Amino acid sequence: MDHSGRLRWLQAALPENKLDLLLVTHLPNVRYLCGFTGSAGALLVSDRGATFFTDGRYIAQARAEVSSARIVIARKAPFLAAAESLTGPRSGRMGKQVLGVEGETMPAAVRDRIAALLASRFKLRSSPPLVERARMVKDVEEIGSIRRAVEMGARLFPILRKKIRPGTREVEVAGAIEYAARCAGAEGMSFSTIIASGQRSAVVHGRASEAAIPRCGFVVCDFGVILAGYCSDRTRTVHVGRPSRAARQMYEAVLEAQQAAIASVRAGVTAGEVDGAARRVLRQWKLARYFTHSTGHGLGLEIHEAPRLAAAQTQELEPGMVITIEPGVYIPGKWGVRIEDVVVVTPSGCEVLAPRDKELIVI
Amino acid sequence: MDHSGRLRWLQAALPENKLDLLLVTHLPNVRYLCGFTGSAGALLVSDRGATFFTDGRYIAQARAEVSSARIVIARKAPFLAAAESLTGPRSGRMGKQVLGVEGETMPAAVRDRIAALLASRFKLRSSPPLVERARMVKDVEEIGSIRRAVEMGARLFPILRKKIRPGTREVEVAGAIEYAARCAGAEGMSFSTIIASGQRSAVVHGRASEAAIPRCGFVVCDFGVILAGYCSDRTRTVHVGRPSRAARQMYEAVLEAQQAAIASVRAGVTAGEVDGAARRVLRQWKLARYFTHSTGHGLGLEIHEAPRLAAAQTQELEPGMVITIEPGVYIPGKWGVRIEDVVVVTPSGCEVLAPRDKELIVI
Repeated sequence: MDHSGRLRWLQAALPENKLDLLLVTHLPNVRYLCGFTGSAGALLVSDRGATFFTDGRYIAQARAEVSSARIVIARKAPFLAAAESLTGPRSGRMGKQVLGVEGETMPAAVRDRIAALLASRFKLRSSPPLVERARMVKDVEEIGSIRRAVEMGARLFPILRKKIRPGTREVEVAGAIEYAARCAGAEGMSFSTIIASGQRSAVVHGRASEAAIPRCGFVVCDFGVILAGYCSDRTRTVHVGRPSRAARQMYEAVLEAQQAAIASVRAGVTAGEVDGAARRVLRQWKLARYFTHSTGHGLGLEIHEAPRLAAAQTQELEPGMVITIEPGVYIPGKWGVRIEDVVVVTPSGCEVLAPRDKELIVI
Repeated sequence: MDHSGRLRWLQAALPENKLDLLLVTHLPNVRYLCGFTGSAGALLVSDRGATFFTDGRYIAQARAEVSSARIVIARKAPFLAAAESLTGPRSGRMGKQVLGVEGETMPAAVRDRIAALLASRFKLRSSPPLVERARMVKDVEEIGSIRRAVEMGARLFPILRKKIRPGTREVEVAGAIEYAARCAGAEGMSFSTIIASGQRSAVVHGRASEAAIPRCGFVVCDFGVILAGYCSDRTRTVHVGRPSRAARQMYEAVLEAQQAAIASVRAGVTAGEVDGAARRVLRQWKLARYFTHSTGHGLGLEIHEAPRLAAAQTQELEPGMVITIEPGVYIPGKWGVRIEDVVVVTPSGCEVLAPRDKELIVI
């Protein structure tokens, strides 16, 4: 990854955002800019360069991973070490400098502490989400990483098909997937694996539980892997036992909604328009009120990133954005269906990654 | 869990902390107080009761889990819905009321937004960590949950012994553990599994990588499970191949430091004193400068909770606190050893949970 190029871009963006320095503390942003993958780090960026702060646990790792910034190993929290590095002898400039902080993720108490420490020399300002905005559009290398992650995730689905049987506990199905992901080289799962069977399929975030898969009903399977830092995300809903006519119709409605949303994706349309395309189909099926979440989200170093594909979101899609398309319908106490793919936005449409297995699978 | 009792305690604590209301947004705190286990929720607590806010994804789950608070399903972020619920018709009281927020975890931008929304009616104040302080001392039911989690974690170690062989990739070892944890009923792992072999054993947070286990060297194995919401945490370091005299000595030093720290634990001593007990032993072995992290931490609903067992920490230990004791020594580029147990503080000492397998295991 071109960490130096990203840092140069950020340095160039500081003046136009009226910032003299930016303290980057959101770890996925730190990783994006300098490659550090640990759990404690802060990056201080100014026109003169970048300095990375971490603690004693990460001496070897920081040296191995970070080449685009100077490294400081501190005996205190990295954000604090970074702030204290600004309390040294005053440089030539007069007046207060403006230090940008990442207010969307930095805890209020941390900002208070930094503000108090630097009160005489710096004015703190919540920076616009500069790095998040840059991260929305993926470069070729990032798209390659996400593609490999999604492909790996898709290759794990046959394991589900074999493992899902009436009486098997949901956690066992999740465990089999996760083990196979590990053996295939995944760093981990990108979120808590969702295996939601029977009535639980109506629970949108139905993490795998001790519940046994019933003899007849939907099983919503939603999971992702992390590969080289990048997330995948994919949902398929299968049916155990013979599906009723109503069950088939519901599946068909969600699939039609998902395909309509995918068909609406191209550079220049807004995130809200894609959400609207899915919702419009479900309105025709009179199921819109059971579609209780947004249509999708960006993904990359984080499982949920900008843009958010929801009603009234005016963010325009751009080539290179990578988003999920995942409408779902959930009838409380009865059943639920969700179908999800990851797509890469192109100038004229989108590429669906690993676009397989979308017809209703009956087990 | 006695959610109603915890809420009553918190309500009673508001006046003495000069708060009229407290907005609880840190999810482990929300779970502690009302039982909600989802990923989006906020709890507004006043002397008149508690209201829980979540979004449309969690309708069924909130109803199933939350009985100690009124439930509101919102079409916006739960924190925002909670804040907006305070903008209704003014109650009888004159003057501004004080709304406490959790500044240590609430993003600065969120606090700014709430402050602006409620400016005319409320004064926002960063609350002391009331819920975190309560959570430090576990009740009998919580200790039971942690005990079961630690026991499960300990029972998984024999799998490591079987799986660790020269040439096996670290991720495969991690995968085998995680699969077994799932089948045993774990909700997930409490952090990214660490399997750090050979030179990588010197990387304190050496998450399992694609690296193959070498023919000779230490393998640091550090993992935990989540069971009924509660975390376990345990580290054992094994040696593949015949350990050198120096390797045996290093293991002995760390074990002696860990035992000294455990022996120092009892109600009334400070967290800093326990840290000092481990460090003192390693100083005698001239290894103190390679012990680059703190001696331990509290654990419970989160893998890292208060208290922190580090130099100069004045927090006194109390009966019912549950903490890790995990000194380690890391020689960069060469090797590392860490040994970790979870202990429950008692009036006169501590109980080590699942205190097995601490002699050096050679594979």
